[in-house]
Amino acid sequence: MSSTGKSMVYVTRSDMPHKGIELLKQHCDLKLWDQPSPVPRAEFLKSVVGANGIFCSLTDKIDKELLDTAGPGLKVVATISVGYDHIDVQECRKRGIKIGYTPDVLTDATAELTLALLLSTSRRLPEAQHEARTGGWVSWAPTWMTGPGLASSTVGIVGFGRIGQAVARRVKSFNTNRILYYNRSERPEAKETGAMKNKTIRAAGLDVTSPEPLPLDSPLFKLENCVVLPHIGSASIEARNTMSELTANNILAALNGHKMPAELK
Amino acid sequence: MSSTGKSMVYVTRSDMPHKGIELLKQHCDLKLWDQPSPVPRAEFLKSVVGANGIFCSLTDKIDKELLDTAGPGLKVVATISVGYDHIDVQECRKRGIKIGYTPDVLTDATAELTLALLLSTSRRLPEAQHEARTGGWVSWAPTWMTGPGLASSTVGIVGFGRIGQAVARRVKSFNTNRILYYNRSERPEAKETGAMKNKTIRAAGLDVTSPEPLPLDSPLFKLENCVVLPHIGSASIEARNTMSELTANNILAALNGHKMPAELK
Repeated sequence: MSSTGKSMVYVTRSDMPHKGIELLKQHCDLKLWDQPSPVPRAEFLKSVVGANGIFCSLTDKIDKELLDTAGPGLKVVATISVGYDHIDVQECRKRGIKIGYTPDVLTDATAELTLALLLSTSRRLPEAQHEARTGGWVSWAPTWMTGPGLASSTVGIVGFGRIGQAVARRVKSFNTNRILYYNRSERPEAKETGAMKNKTIRAAGLDVTSPEPLPLDSPLFKLENCVVLPHIGSASIEARNTMSELTANNILAALNGHKMPAELK
Repeated sequence: MSSTGKSMVYVTRSDMPHKGIELLKQHCDLKLWDQPSPVPRAEFLKSVVGANGIFCSLTDKIDKELLDTAGPGLKVVATISVGYDHIDVQECRKRGIKIGYTPDVLTDATAELTLALLLSTSRRLPEAQHEARTGGWVSWAPTWMTGPGLASSTVGIVGFGRIGQAVARRVKSFNTNRILYYNRSERPEAKETGAMKNKTIRAAGLDVTSPEPLPLDSPLFKLENCVVLPHIGSASIEARNTMSELTANNILAALNGHKMPAELK
């Protein structure tokens, strides 16, 4: 509790989408890390003392030490993400600290990006753009820069949860012939780099890599038939605004003892 | 008519998709320009003498001189394209020469490429790829590389013929809010380069330019929010095969006095 009598919420970076921040400001005192980058650990430990809520992201480690430092006034940790590997869930439970996250609101954005990658790789957009910019575009030619179309094709989807189903609905509108789906556990171990070099895999579009960011000398960057994106699946303006708003509402609900709109149980 | 008694068909380049060429080979004697590039004019004039049919593309000028040179045995000119500006239609009519072209079979491929451009520009794929390759990808950030999503958005379509309608069907599957359409004649004259620089137009994806190829020093290539492709709208493998097959069938039907599957009337 701050000196104003309002709850104090710590926000771990300056560039969280406005919607959620404006909402919190109406009801709480905010303390923000003032840079558009993850708060350094030492600064986080210093500033979190006395916080009643934490508005954080994937890049902020919420562990025993941090919870101890925040102190017994901490009621809620809300992350602007679906993932929560950065939060020590057990330690939160022990202390009765609620956890908020943002499931379900990324579905449209992520399905869209999947289609963007599918079309970019099948119709060879990066290669074609490169040719246009560098003099490879000479005149119309009947087989130059051709790629397989989605119409009448078979499309496979690994993982058929909410996002997989949203992808399937969009893919279907392209007059595909068949859509096959697999559980995530059925995914074959592919030696992808090799398989792409020899074109066993014709092309690949990746938005998630291991590690992240992918090192600049990764062989994947050298393959003309591979598109690597910097984990922007949920990076639509609307999705990020909604995530920010949901994170704020998770915090406000927890502080007021109401049902949180998206509590991690 | 060649010495074998079969009709003689001239094919203007060596890289026409196999399907049509194989079909013609079964019934005609073929004479091909042996390079995967447009036949030079002098060579074309020399080789076309005595041809009964011509299998050509956008890059081959079929004018009075060429028709005179081919001689009175020429019955059909079939182009592997929807466009026919390269053919002197009046001169063909005067001589009773039939003209074949390939409408309708590009719809799926072109609608697909339109969606590829729409998604690539709105979700900023070229920029995001560039950042990943060049060290701009540092860590997850809540507003970095965000772009407007299609879900709940309004999409405008200029030109609502077969391709425009096919685009609309696909766009709808992305949970858009509204789709507006305009006749081609309603298109406003946009000073595009300026409007893109100052972000009045947030981004543009272009597959057709004037002139083609677009000169390498075009200001369009310097805009990070502009994707320029080398006219690959119909460049799906299936579409080009179908175009080749249809061109061959146009020639065979005309030579046999049957109804052509796609005659330009």
